[in-house]
Amino acid sequence: MGELRALDYEHEGVLLKGELALPAGPGPHPAVLVMHDAHGLGDHVRRRALALADLGYAALATDMYGGGKLFTGQTEVGPFFLDLQENPQRLRGRVLAAFEALRARPEVDQARMGAIGFCFGGQCVLELARSGAAARGVVSFHGLLHTSLPARAGEVKAKVLVLTGGRDPYAPADAVAGLQRELTEAGVDWQLTVYGEGWHAFTDPNPEKASVPGVRYDPLIDKLSWAQATAFLDATLRD
Amino acid sequence: MGELRALDYEHEGVLLKGELALPAGPGPHPAVLVMHDAHGLGDHVRRRALALADLGYAALATDMYGGGKLFTGQTEVGPFFLDLQENPQRLRGRVLAAFEALRARPEVDQARMGAIGFCFGGQCVLELARSGAAARGVVSFHGLLHTSLPARAGEVKAKVLVLTGGRDPYAPADAVAGLQRELTEAGVDWQLTVYGEGWHAFTDPNPEKASVPGVRYDPLIDKLSWAQATAFLDATLRD
Repeated sequence: MGELRALDYEHEGVLLKGELALPAGPGPHPAVLVMHDAHGLGDHVRRRALALADLGYAALATDMYGGGKLFTGQTEVGPFFLDLQENPQRLRGRVLAAFEALRARPEVDQARMGAIGFCFGGQCVLELARSGAAARGVVSFHGLLHTSLPARAGEVKAKVLVLTGGRDPYAPADAVAGLQRELTEAGVDWQLTVYGEGWHAFTDPNPEKASVPGVRYDPLIDKLSWAQATAFLDATLRD
Repeated sequence: MGELRALDYEHEGVLLKGELALPAGPGPHPAVLVMHDAHGLGDHVRRRALALADLGYAALATDMYGGGKLFTGQTEVGPFFLDLQENPQRLRGRVLAAFEALRARPEVDQARMGAIGFCFGGQCVLELARSGAAARGVVSFHGLLHTSLPARAGEVKAKVLVLTGGRDPYAPADAVAGLQRELTEAGVDWQLTVYGEGWHAFTDPNPEKASVPGVRYDPLIDKLSWAQATAFLDATLRD
């Protein structure tokens, strides 16, 4: 594995401290945002960014809260998370700030960009797609599916892959059906996998999260969802 | 690529002419049925069986009609197809005859068996799972989802992966929802992907089929569904 290097960027006066993983070899490389869950930038997304760099992508582990830190307690992170949920334009703007920060790097092929995200990060990548940003593909892992700024017909450029658990209380069946309707009506090229036995956060082995209601790591679904996501990125960013 | 060899078997007095692809190297190998669409055993499933052998599986392209032939006209194949649709126990028995024929081969690891199928063959592999056969995993590609012998609680041993197109008129949204209900109520470990832009037979490049209503080959979905299916077989048959 390679290593991560600091990539600071800014949005509305907040200093955001991302971490960038680069592939070996000369660029420009296809490039992917890697967007963290509600707890902030931690080892889960760092590992994914490094894994993507091994596969040939410039991968930016983003920072949605400022300071680039992981919050271990829900009390501490709550205000940061809620501020973005209550200000959907700010949330979307902050995602786009990360996208622009990655796009501005000389190592990046600006025509071959995408994003993946986990839980809250899954919501963020859907917002990136809904915004009409020039991403080719986005992947939501056990993401939040709701939005107050739904996709508009003909405006979404990215192909969208949604990977969700049939038992995830944060993405219930009616939210899944609602997202399918939203994306279909907007003419989005989407794909959606329901892992029937999957709970929330099925990719995250962090034992501290196992106490959160509805959360369960699943090694098989983790492996299969990663295989699916990397095949999708390969097909959409490299074709 | 390797080559296919004849594997004859029998069911209710009908001689079925399957074709077996074997990996290089000593067995026993994990083993997979490869089940054809309504037109019979043709190059589409032959290619898939050979590709699976390259990945290390003993793969049997099955024959559901007898004689091991491909029917190019719907008029010719109609009676064979309808006979099995109208006799669901016969259909299921014939799938199990193929499963037993493969399982009896000395090259096969009997504890590591699965099945994939396309269109009608997707229905056949779901019937294999519903029967309670000792398969570890089955994959339905753009399959027919209905059954008159639904899965019974606790009896299904196989994990089930369903890959279906959002525009497939042979697998409409209510059939997809019905299958999810059936499998959930029976306690099956299932996964289901809807490719929003997918039509029927999205894996089959045969130009002769393009005139059939609702059928459309899709190179991207073909590639992604194969990546997903092979990752699933690897995880369920080799873990």
